[in-house]
Amino acid sequence: MTTTLPSEVSASQSLVRPALREAVDTLEPAMRRIVSYHLGWTDQHGDAVEGGGGKALRPALALLAAQAVRARPEAALAGAVAVELVHNFSLLHDDVMDGDTERRHRPTVWALFGTPAAILAGDALLALAVEVLEATGDLAAGRCLTSAVRRLIEGQTADIDFEGRALVGVEECLRMEDGKTASLMSCAAELGALLGGGDEAGVAALGRFGRNLGMGFQLVDDLLGIVGHPDVTGKPVLADLRVRKKSVPVVVALNSGTDSAAALREFYRGDRPPTEDDIQAMAALIDDTGAITWTRERARHYIAEAEASLAAVNPPEEIRAALADLTRFVVERDR
Amino acid sequence: MTTTLPSEVSASQSLVRPALREAVDTLEPAMRRIVSYHLGWTDQHGDAVEGGGGKALRPALALLAAQAVRARPEAALAGAVAVELVHNFSLLHDDVMDGDTERRHRPTVWALFGTPAAILAGDALLALAVEVLEATGDLAAGRCLTSAVRRLIEGQTADIDFEGRALVGVEECLRMEDGKTASLMSCAAELGALLGGGDEAGVAALGRFGRNLGMGFQLVDDLLGIVGHPDVTGKPVLADLRVRKKSVPVVVALNSGTDSAAALREFYRGDRPPTEDDIQAMAALIDDTGAITWTRERARHYIAEAEASLAAVNPPEEIRAALADLTRFVVERDR
Repeated sequence: MTTTLPSEVSASQSLVRPALREAVDTLEPAMRRIVSYHLGWTDQHGDAVEGGGGKALRPALALLAAQAVRARPEAALAGAVAVELVHNFSLLHDDVMDGDTERRHRPTVWALFGTPAAILAGDALLALAVEVLEATGDLAAGRCLTSAVRRLIEGQTADIDFEGRALVGVEECLRMEDGKTASLMSCAAELGALLGGGDEAGVAALGRFGRNLGMGFQLVDDLLGIVGHPDVTGKPVLADLRVRKKSVPVVVALNSGTDSAAALREFYRGDRPPTEDDIQAMAALIDDTGAITWTRERARHYIAEAEASLAAVNPPEEIRAALADLTRFVVERDR
Repeated sequence: MTTTLPSEVSASQSLVRPALREAVDTLEPAMRRIVSYHLGWTDQHGDAVEGGGGKALRPALALLAAQAVRARPEAALAGAVAVELVHNFSLLHDDVMDGDTERRHRPTVWALFGTPAAILAGDALLALAVEVLEATGDLAAGRCLTSAVRRLIEGQTADIDFEGRALVGVEECLRMEDGKTASLMSCAAELGALLGGGDEAGVAALGRFGRNLGMGFQLVDDLLGIVGHPDVTGKPVLADLRVRKKSVPVVVALNSGTDSAAALREFYRGDRPPTEDDIQAMAALIDDTGAITWTRERARHYIAEAEASLAAVNPPEEIRAALADLTRFVVERDR
């Protein structure tokens, strides 16, 4: 599978990029340099880089949600910028907390500029996101963002808490991923609908779309962390297994009550870094329990829920098609 | 000198503490536990502690500012809670960035619960501060807070940048301390006046009061980091010299063009941790340049400016007296 980004996502980048740059340009030069590097706009010397940056799914979602309630995409621009800033705040801090030295095939900010720089850059982006929405004067939009940030932090707290626990339930693991990923996706769509002047039902329905899309996205991410190819994901192969991350498929496998689960549990009990052989064995055991299939099915279920939630919105036909493209990309992507 | 907290500060604590607790209680249990420990309400096992917590100067300033514009202190409660949350967000992240293992005679959060916990707790308090002000529906208050957070982060970024530089100017060092400390003090007073319904001139004057008070406070803090006693400050003796911190008196000394400055510069060039003898020699050299006297005078100048700015406000007599108490405490304190 080599799934490319839907064209709506690339199109939204041409709208979002200048607005994002305008926001980042208000930061002090030293901070701007670090943030520009993190966003993939410049290399470590501050020289411009072509075609850098992440997928920018969240901003695309915000713009499409505005269009779904029949506003122009520009109406949601502040929301698109705010969610992208919050997403990058969380990446900057996550990389410090996880000790990850690489992201998108480049050294992470803390690895290159030091931990204080990465902490401060994350703080600056969170504050900037709030400022960008404050400038719209829309209090509901501001509340939507901070409530997503709260759930995001709760999800990350649970994620770290799981590391130190032998037993993690499937439901709490799904709740963790809902906080960590789906909350901000939900917020992106809600913000787009809110700023686009959508009614309460429309905002809620698009929020559900974003939440389900986010859950589907995260479960596929979990699968890629177990079966993904490093040359396309930008992460080392089987990265989640290497650090014994308790993602949904792992937790489903550990809770499956099978013989393979018992064997897998032994690997998750260890303290030493697993060897290459260990990692291959762990991946095979997880698959044996049926957890890969379970997770793939569950991801499809969330995506179906996302599509169903659009019934309450009745978006213009080309926007419905674009949102469907986005859902397909999320389940079929290989990076 | 054994200067105690002015009674207004202690009085404001009885109003602020329950409101702060109410805000913190909305956090998830795992996060609440860490934050309660950090705020000095509980020990590391989660058991309640008597008389814990910091000076809570910023909340007191917010409440007094509301009273200065003839509102009840309760009007400023959300502002008081928000600035205290932002202050603690910055302490949590600062301790990680500086690698400080003790604060107020207790292990810091990262030292006890790990770096991820401290980063996430800081993030949670920043988001919570924004939420608390959003709940007031006062957009100007929200903007006041985020603009202070931005300057706070700029100040911390400059502080870290200075560590890696041989030459730092006195003006940029004062600007750094303005960002790091005075901005949030200014915000506390502005928020109090804003939420208390003060007019534009009153809000601006109280903002100037807070900013000058903050600068005075920070300069005294810098002096205590060079000449302070560890048994009262809760910091190891001459702590700022130990880590070669470029605080205002140090930068003034380094830029004094004296023979002592040249000798001091040698100490600041080193990479190894300074010995006890080095530290004593550094303190003596700084004093020789006249930088201690200069900084003390400058602190008094800021405090005089703070008092002068109150002329534009005409607060009730007992509030003027309370604000004067606060300024006296700031310059005369020994911790």
